[in-house]
Amino acid sequence: MRSIKVDFGDRSYPIHIGSGLLQNIGERCVEAGFPVRSSLLVVSDTEVAPRYLPALEAALQQKGYTVYSHVIPAGEASKSLTVYEEVMTTAIQAGLDRHSAVLALGGGVVGDLAGFVAASYMRGIGFMQIPTTILAHDSSVGGKVAVNHPLAKNMIGAFYQPSMVLYDLNTLLTLPPRQVSSGLAEVVKHGLILDKEFAYWCREHAAELLGLNLEVLGYALERGCSIKADVIRNDEREQGVRAILNLGHTIGHAIEAVGGYGVLLHGEAISIGMAGSALLAAKLGRDKSIYEETVSMLSALSLPVRLPAHYDEDELMEAMMHDKKFKEGKMTFIVPDAIGSVSIVNDVQASLVREVIAQLKKEGSPW
Amino acid sequence: MRSIKVDFGDRSYPIHIGSGLLQNIGERCVEAGFPVRSSLLVVSDTEVAPRYLPALEAALQQKGYTVYSHVIPAGEASKSLTVYEEVMTTAIQAGLDRHSAVLALGGGVVGDLAGFVAASYMRGIGFMQIPTTILAHDSSVGGKVAVNHPLAKNMIGAFYQPSMVLYDLNTLLTLPPRQVSSGLAEVVKHGLILDKEFAYWCREHAAELLGLNLEVLGYALERGCSIKADVIRNDEREQGVRAILNLGHTIGHAIEAVGGYGVLLHGEAISIGMAGSALLAAKLGRDKSIYEETVSMLSALSLPVRLPAHYDEDELMEAMMHDKKFKEGKMTFIVPDAIGSVSIVNDVQASLVREVIAQLKKEGSPW
Repeated sequence: MRSIKVDFGDRSYPIHIGSGLLQNIGERCVEAGFPVRSSLLVVSDTEVAPRYLPALEAALQQKGYTVYSHVIPAGEASKSLTVYEEVMTTAIQAGLDRHSAVLALGGGVVGDLAGFVAASYMRGIGFMQIPTTILAHDSSVGGKVAVNHPLAKNMIGAFYQPSMVLYDLNTLLTLPPRQVSSGLAEVVKHGLILDKEFAYWCREHAAELLGLNLEVLGYALERGCSIKADVIRNDEREQGVRAILNLGHTIGHAIEAVGGYGVLLHGEAISIGMAGSALLAAKLGRDKSIYEETVSMLSALSLPVRLPAHYDEDELMEAMMHDKKFKEGKMTFIVPDAIGSVSIVNDVQASLVREVIAQLKKEGSPW
Repeated sequence: MRSIKVDFGDRSYPIHIGSGLLQNIGERCVEAGFPVRSSLLVVSDTEVAPRYLPALEAALQQKGYTVYSHVIPAGEASKSLTVYEEVMTTAIQAGLDRHSAVLALGGGVVGDLAGFVAASYMRGIGFMQIPTTILAHDSSVGGKVAVNHPLAKNMIGAFYQPSMVLYDLNTLLTLPPRQVSSGLAEVVKHGLILDKEFAYWCREHAAELLGLNLEVLGYALERGCSIKADVIRNDEREQGVRAILNLGHTIGHAIEAVGGYGVLLHGEAISIGMAGSALLAAKLGRDKSIYEETVSMLSALSLPVRLPAHYDEDELMEAMMHDKKFKEGKMTFIVPDAIGSVSIVNDVQASLVREVIAQLKKEGSPW
């Protein structure tokens, strides 16, 4: 088992990564500080619950916990205030008290929704993240929890740290190939931002990662989580440096908003966004090889680097104007300076971004 | 102007109390750290907005702020997830960014709702409390913000400290008499909990308080806020000692839930609850004079100390079982040991509480 400590003073918590960790979920809940006499609420979705929920509940009950569950429809549409209220109703009817905890068993949608429930039920109760996708290595670390508003993604939420992140690698074995690639987009992003060596390591080990070699994948997730933990420990509430984690996300979120959530997977959208950031870097005078290398790494992981032709540039620009990365009306982008190094650039001209989007739709070299 | 500092380290904030403070609201927003280039959202209700909102907006605009407003229907029914989502929609459409702030202009309902919006819009933006009732001296200090769930009050919320509390005493002059008394219930509660001298002072000055003598009222609010600030600074997230502030609230919340929110005002309900706590104290062996004195103080402030006969005991007991003050199924009560001193008593037997409720419905001496 690999373990990382996320350092937030008296709210520090461990990330455990390994195969078969769910078997000892009862002991982990005790380790996380959840009193055995209080009730637990497991939130999961219609894809994950049939596979893992019954065994999870049995293991928790064996340890003495009273367990309730709420299963939401799989997919981004469940990250809504409507579903949030339904989970709250379950929590109240189950009699969860202030010593209870919410366990998020699933991917990013489950983690974000269940996390906001935990953050706001009785003004905050215990919370454990049990990610079952590669993508969720990113969203389960750092305490950003949220639901979507019909007008904008992740607009309603909190910064709320879990008591523990428990990563059972066995749950990744049933992921479909597109979801594997989508998750690896956030993994390699952490290398592109801060760790050149790790970014190249991802390209070298692309075949093993795509083939779900759990030893190789375990290292990749540990490294991805560690880099993220290093960034957020100094900027829990995203006042400054934490913004570098949004590499590719401004364009990526716009792609998701315009195309409809789930048409392109999150990792696919931010892969195109990272290619766009590297294009923007070239327009701002950085070396063109950054773009070539970025595209090579993303392609090796079977990720898209071009925008499908039917996406409308005006709609994408409009969607970006609603994005929360724009302070006081100005456009801010995370721009790579090299592989493994980025800058936060304010005052990016909208016309440049529009050019980037147009070029992302074209085949062949942008030069 | 009277000023109190609420000490929460780097999230400390001032409470300003005085007549005419709204005239300088622009300067206060600058003092609170809200950047002039960002937009502000004023949340108010249909009773308060017509009186104070136009002048408030004009003063803020004169200082250079862009101001939006959202006016909710007056009353507890607005403390819902539905209204919460409507305010969020206004905030998004107005283009509020992460440097924006929400100003709560009104009583406890406005403050609780607007505070939860501020706590969760983009995971937390600036927040100022501008209470316009006496009752709100309590809810505006301490960072407890929430909306109601149909099954239970204040079930969905956060601990979120404002940047400033601005109390313009002139806004209290139009309060109807029942609301004045209701607010004074929370004022005298702070004396009953921790300050014997202040509790007796409230009884002595009852006529001036009920007559809205602003000099006397200003002192009472300063003292009430100070006592509360002292309690919460050591227990922001209500893990322990902060619970003493709930004197009278377990029974009071049940009265509100069973009778319908707003049938009895909040202060009226907790006044009956405080009389009940003093009765419970006598049953647990404390001096009967605590009850006599408590009832005398509350009556002097024109507050009810008896439960109307139509309230059903079973329904009240059931409502209390849903109340969040019950850890792991046991009943916990704040019980007075003397005027100005209370204990947190766990393991109170339900049958004792039932006796108290029955006696609260009877006329004459309970002995």
